[in-house]
Amino acid sequence: MDYVYGPGRNHLFVPGPVNIPEPVIRAMNRNNEDYRSPAVPALTKTLLEDVKKIFKTTTGTPFIIPTTGTGAWESALTNTLSPGDRIVSFLIGQFSLLWIDQQQRLGFNVDVVESDWGQGANLDVLASKLAEDRYHSIKAICIVHNETATGVTNNLATVRKLLDDHNHPALFLVDGVSSICALDFRMDEWGVDVALTGSQKALSMPTGMGFVCASPKALEAAKSARSVRVFFDWNDYLKFYKLGTYWPYTPSIQLLYGLRTALDLIFEEGLDNVIARHARLGKATRLAVEAWGLKNCTQKEEWFSDTVTAVLVPQYIDSAEVVKRGWKRYNLSLGLGLNKVAGKVFRIGHLGNLNELQLLGCLAGVEMVLRDVGYPVKLGSGVAAAAAFLSNTTPLIPSRI
Amino acid sequence: MDYVYGPGRNHLFVPGPVNIPEPVIRAMNRNNEDYRSPAVPALTKTLLEDVKKIFKTTTGTPFIIPTTGTGAWESALTNTLSPGDRIVSFLIGQFSLLWIDQQQRLGFNVDVVESDWGQGANLDVLASKLAEDRYHSIKAICIVHNETATGVTNNLATVRKLLDDHNHPALFLVDGVSSICALDFRMDEWGVDVALTGSQKALSMPTGMGFVCASPKALEAAKSARSVRVFFDWNDYLKFYKLGTYWPYTPSIQLLYGLRTALDLIFEEGLDNVIARHARLGKATRLAVEAWGLKNCTQKEEWFSDTVTAVLVPQYIDSAEVVKRGWKRYNLSLGLGLNKVAGKVFRIGHLGNLNELQLLGCLAGVEMVLRDVGYPVKLGSGVAAAAAFLSNTTPLIPSRI
Amino acid sequence: MDYVYGPGRNHLFVPGPVNIPEPVIRAMNRNNEDYRSPAVPALTKTLLEDVKKIFKTTTGTPFIIPTTGTGAWESALTNTLSPGDRIVSFLIGQFSLLWIDQQQRLGFNVDVVESDWGQGANLDVLASKLAEDRYHSIKAICIVHNETATGVTNNLATVRKLLDDHNHPALFLVDGVSSICALDFRMDEWGVDVALTGSQKALSMPTGMGFVCASPKALEAAKSARSVRVFFDWNDYLKFYKLGTYWPYTPSIQLLYGLRTALDLIFEEGLDNVIARHARLGKATRLAVEAWGLKNCTQKEEWFSDTVTAVLVPQYIDSAEVVKRGWKRYNLSLGLGLNKVAGKVFRIGHLGNLNELQLLGCLAGVEMVLRDVGYPVKLGSGVAAAAAFLSNTTPLIPSRI
Amino acid sequence: MDYVYGPGRNHLFVPGPVNIPEPVIRAMNRNNEDYRSPAVPALTKTLLEDVKKIFKTTTGTPFIIPTTGTGAWESALTNTLSPGDRIVSFLIGQFSLLWIDQQQRLGFNVDVVESDWGQGANLDVLASKLAEDRYHSIKAICIVHNETATGVTNNLATVRKLLDDHNHPALFLVDGVSSICALDFRMDEWGVDVALTGSQKALSMPTGMGFVCASPKALEAAKSARSVRVFFDWNDYLKFYKLGTYWPYTPSIQLLYGLRTALDLIFEEGLDNVIARHARLGKATRLAVEAWGLKNCTQKEEWFSDTVTAVLVPQYIDSAEVVKRGWKRYNLSLGLGLNKVAGKVFRIGHLGNLNELQLLGCLAGVEMVLRDVGYPVKLGSGVAAAAAFLSNTTPLIPSRI
Repeated sequence: MDYVYGPGRNHLFVPGPVNIPEPVIRAMNRNNEDYRSPAVPALTKTLLEDVKKIFKTTTGTPFIIPTTGTGAWESALTNTLSPGDRIVSFLIGQFSLLWIDQQQRLGFNVDVVESDWGQGANLDVLASKLAEDRYHSIKAICIVHNETATGVTNNLATVRKLLDDHNHPALFLVDGVSSICALDFRMDEWGVDVALTGSQKALSMPTGMGFVCASPKALEAAKSARSVRVFFDWNDYLKFYKLGTYWPYTPSIQLLYGLRTALDLIFEEGLDNVIARHARLGKATRLAVEAWGLKNCTQKEEWFSDTVTAVLVPQYIDSAEVVKRGWKRYNLSLGLGLNKVAGKVFRIGHLGNLNELQLLGCLAGVEMVLRDVGYPVKLGSGVAAAAAFLSNTTPLIPSRI
Repeated sequence: MDYVYGPGRNHLFVPGPVNIPEPVIRAMNRNNEDYRSPAVPALTKTLLEDVKKIFKTTTGTPFIIPTTGTGAWESALTNTLSPGDRIVSFLIGQFSLLWIDQQQRLGFNVDVVESDWGQGANLDVLASKLAEDRYHSIKAICIVHNETATGVTNNLATVRKLLDDHNHPALFLVDGVSSICALDFRMDEWGVDVALTGSQKALSMPTGMGFVCASPKALEAAKSARSVRVFFDWNDYLKFYKLGTYWPYTPSIQLLYGLRTALDLIFEEGLDNVIARHARLGKATRLAVEAWGLKNCTQKEEWFSDTVTAVLVPQYIDSAEVVKRGWKRYNLSLGLGLNKVAGKVFRIGHLGNLNELQLLGCLAGVEMVLRDVGYPVKLGSGVAAAAAFLSNTTPLIPSRI
Repeated sequence: MDYVYGPGRNHLFVPGPVNIPEPVIRAMNRNNEDYRSPAVPALTKTLLEDVKKIFKTTTGTPFIIPTTGTGAWESALTNTLSPGDRIVSFLIGQFSLLWIDQQQRLGFNVDVVESDWGQGANLDVLASKLAEDRYHSIKAICIVHNETATGVTNNLATVRKLLDDHNHPALFLVDGVSSICALDFRMDEWGVDVALTGSQKALSMPTGMGFVCASPKALEAAKSARSVRVFFDWNDYLKFYKLGTYWPYTPSIQLLYGLRTALDLIFEEGLDNVIARHARLGKATRLAVEAWGLKNCTQKEEWFSDTVTAVLVPQYIDSAEVVKRGWKRYNLSLGLGLNKVAGKVFRIGHLGNLNELQLLGCLAGVEMVLRDVGYPVKLGSGVAAAAAFLSNTTPLIPSRI
Repeated sequence: MDYVYGPGRNHLFVPGPVNIPEPVIRAMNRNNEDYRSPAVPALTKTLLEDVKKIFKTTTGTPFIIPTTGTGAWESALTNTLSPGDRIVSFLIGQFSLLWIDQQQRLGFNVDVVESDWGQGANLDVLASKLAEDRYHSIKAICIVHNETATGVTNNLATVRKLLDDHNHPALFLVDGVSSICALDFRMDEWGVDVALTGSQKALSMPTGMGFVCASPKALEAAKSARSVRVFFDWNDYLKFYKLGTYWPYTPSIQLLYGLRTALDLIFEEGLDNVIARHARLGKATRLAVEAWGLKNCTQKEEWFSDTVTAVLVPQYIDSAEVVKRGWKRYNLSLGLGLNKVAGKVFRIGHLGNLNELQLLGCLAGVEMVLRDVGYPVKLGSGVAAAAAFLSNTTPLIPSRI
């Protein structure tokens, strides 16, 4: 049943799927239930209310769809846009690339703004495009908040500012897959029209739930959007929301209870504390990378990601070997470099329900692996740099004071 | 965490989601894993091979999609058909109705063949449509093998025969949601082109996996099908099948291990024994209904379903009360009557990992509930009728002989 | 891993170990913890307080010992008595016999009062022994509240009355293994000095915790009791109670959390409702037995047990075959006849977290099994009799009204 | 339900209870079963056979007792000795002290050989005692293989040699609680007569099973041993072994399946590889301690323990603060100093199912905690020293090569 057992815990540091906290595993350890009994709508009601909090929205309408992030993307696009619509989209890494591929296949007219992998979205280009677009041919701006392949976080507040400065009515669609519930994300404040994430990321659950949250403007757009959609159609949900039964098709009972617990844990810790913890672990990781004498794939500090760090290896090393070696020798799961940066970077996910000592164990493992593949790292150097920072910044666990 | 706790086990007799066997619950009780490690493809390979067995196909290509039955429908349709294509579809109950609704919204030209709810698909009409269709304007026949709302099983072998008799090239698309792995289903023998089911039905797992299996002819059709699709596109899977990594997007680690165990249990019992068990429990249920003096919603024996029985209640009773009462007093979950038969039928699901005494407990409960709602049933009568049959037909458990 | 898998649920109707509710299984699904951290004493404190409630005592001191019922017996005896002490003990079935065997091996002078198996403790004999014992040579009365082998419940109130009537200072030691938390048991009101049970009985947990509760008089007796004891010594516990760390040796973290949830469920249902539920299921079972034309091993109504029914089979049937057959054909686990009643009775445990439909499923199964072994039962007859009673007496589930 | 939740994993580094591997947690995630069905004896048979392997005995008889280590001690003593028997016992720390306390309370004439805490058993004294004991008044030598309070491992081979050299027939009783299945232990080769351990130690399970293994000589001694015993009496087991039903009282079904998996994992890794892993982690820990400039409580290298390291802190630090701080700030569970070494040492358990990166995470945590309590450790120094060693000695995981 466990195809490749190794002693001790697996150290899971891919940027998703991430570690599930024990209480969530426990909550999902259950038989099926009739989702048409009064129990499930009662539970669902609390979930929908609380999901809004992690998007920091009071006006948005959340949809919890039995799908992955890819499906959530499709739901965001097809409910708000029509074939042929012009959209501006930023290509900065593998996941933005995949989203753009989807946008094109769904028939939109995608105005791709490409950056080097390791750079953030080029918002200067956006500014000029908006400036030029007097007749509002641009129907939507599509942007990943955090590009998981390169560890780049885009500045969403600036996007909103540009839209406002140009008084541009384009919809603002955000992939928050590796950001929401881990990075500072403010749907209402930033005027995001559709934001989305997946359960296996910062919510620290199994894969299987796509979370899509729509602003009133997005809901309005949905009324005239002519993209063909059925499974991903918000209207089917809205119909059942009105009925108070919530589910147009069978939800996963296990994930519902798991989500309840995942949210409870997040609120117990405090969403802002969760975000601060990610900031702390992200910074600690970057300090380690620096101490190792390696470069961050992310080219400027303003784009540093607090959920994933893509580490550039020297040319004489194949980063895939780092990942392979970690898994084979130390039960350590690191992220591969994807596409353009395959072989060039490995990724440390520091995302989800994770603490300081888990990260330090991972960093110690990376050091040993780097040695294995021929990079002359000073053992303990990265751990020391990270620990120096963490030791000054980690708060006491509130429930244990 | 348990919103409406009641003592003892919940008696889950809705026709999905169904009871999950303990070994499957156990197998899913785990943390996430990196799905890009060598372990997950190795596991996936065995799953894809074994899933073919439950479709009884050697030539089909299975897709395991993180979605529900509704999504599986969409995948079957959009990969094989183009907008405007004429399809023949049979409306015989709520689920065939919903599928037809989807077909229409996806832009197909649906030739709806309607029957009374409680009757099977009208294959005479199909015969004449095929006969008339000399120029093969009909691109596909869409049919539910088992209509879950009314407990009606259609005869797929006859559909195939009609197609063959008329030498008609239409694709043969089958919703096997409440049949595959429980009723006799033979993809290859019956020349089914796309068949589909969901994890929460006869496979006795949580919701979250849609299984779609495509014949070589369906794969061929996919090359020219012009329906827009991305999340549900088979090509994305086929690309990763070739790479040997299998997953275009993050699968649920928990469901993969759960599926491995679910299949192991089915093969340990023997797929034909599983089907025989469903036949036995279905027959027992119908004998109970008869003993109670009630009518089966299914109007002819040839359509009787071995996975769900829709029971008609006398006009002076609201069948929703039966369901409500079962849940409130006896921790019994029965299926509601849906749409046209709302208030008129309640449903007993006898689907999935279930045994004789579970069913008899349910039947005893239904008797008490019927009394509660004012129907003068003789207590024990249905149980006696069912037990008389089961007592003659239930084999010893092979592992315990 | 599952040595003898059979489809569907196992129907567990032995009088222990009994069915564990899902929330308890979930609560125990966890890693170990440091039992010396502040968390475990905090949890333990609530457990000790709440365990007193199920003994219905405010003055007693509970001990939760990592052992079974046999160990709990030993703890009760060795902490309160000295070798050579005269004790009166009632032999009415296999478990009282085993306790007496232990009493003798521990060196007590056991005055055995024997009854036919199927009868309760002969309290008339007790009365005369107490009357004769002017010099109080009797140091303790040892009695099982409910003899699990024969389904006989003794009248503890009468025992107390006799002790009071004779102003006799003997300790009153009660085996409540198959009674406490299921039958009406009142430690304080009945002046019980030591009462005990095990986790795998009415508390519906795994085996592994022996619960022993000592009255102030028992604690006083412990000071002078000269029986050798270490592992079972209450003093070791009392020392740690004072320190506030509670555990003289490592407890099972899993069982602690399991007990927390088990108690929560019992209090949610209401202890008196739990007891009423057992009374209801016990009565229903006896009505079924009667309807089958079989005899209860228990010879008088006053001794009928609401947690287990021992059913006498006709001489031409081997009751072990009933049990074997139930397991082999219907995944039904019934209790064997033990020792003197081996081959003569089979037992239906209706103990712990169980509801009406589970019981009716079991009864339906027993009917089919009886047929299998050659007893001409009318199928449905027992179920009907039980259901008629249950249908009139089962309340709505409070959380679902 | 989780009294003091903190984000991320708990880092459990007490020397018991230790981390349970996920597959074992899964295996125990189950309902109760009838332990009198054929399934449980079949399972038990494999367990008893396999338990012998972890004791490295072919001639011993294992007993799996529902108890803790304290109970296992009592079982070892009371089955082989009679009150008043002279036994030689070594006091070298808290756990040997507790065992000696038990020996005295059980009425043996204990000849205590005391050493400083931090030293091993004084075997020179044993040699002279054996030399003087011409008439064999010494009935047993009782020794802990590994003193968990101080991290001292005694040399059992030498004990055997001394007994052989003096041709002394004393029984050789070994507490292997924190050694068996982690340190090199050879029951047959070293002529150990009774060896014992507990489930929550190197077997990496929950607390609840005491394992006692008796040599043929010990079984022979049991025939004449006059210590009073019932619950811990081997005879009750032997009786049921003969019957093939194995259990004199109800076992924990969950622990049986858990043990099956725990043993499977140990054999998959290879017992000798498990022991080598402990040696590796022990050495790494000691190198870290050295790098921190701290002293090991264990005074000589020959006694260094590979399952637990007791670290001496400078006089100006209270070691309890180290433990408290680790738990409150970093979700790290370290072992307290007990009794004589309270406040002076903290303990790092490196016992059970644990791997390199878990240990390095712990060591990084200890460094930060040491800083917190005022010890000027160089962050990363211990991790570096440990990693340097591990990086040279850790083998690839065999299943992943």
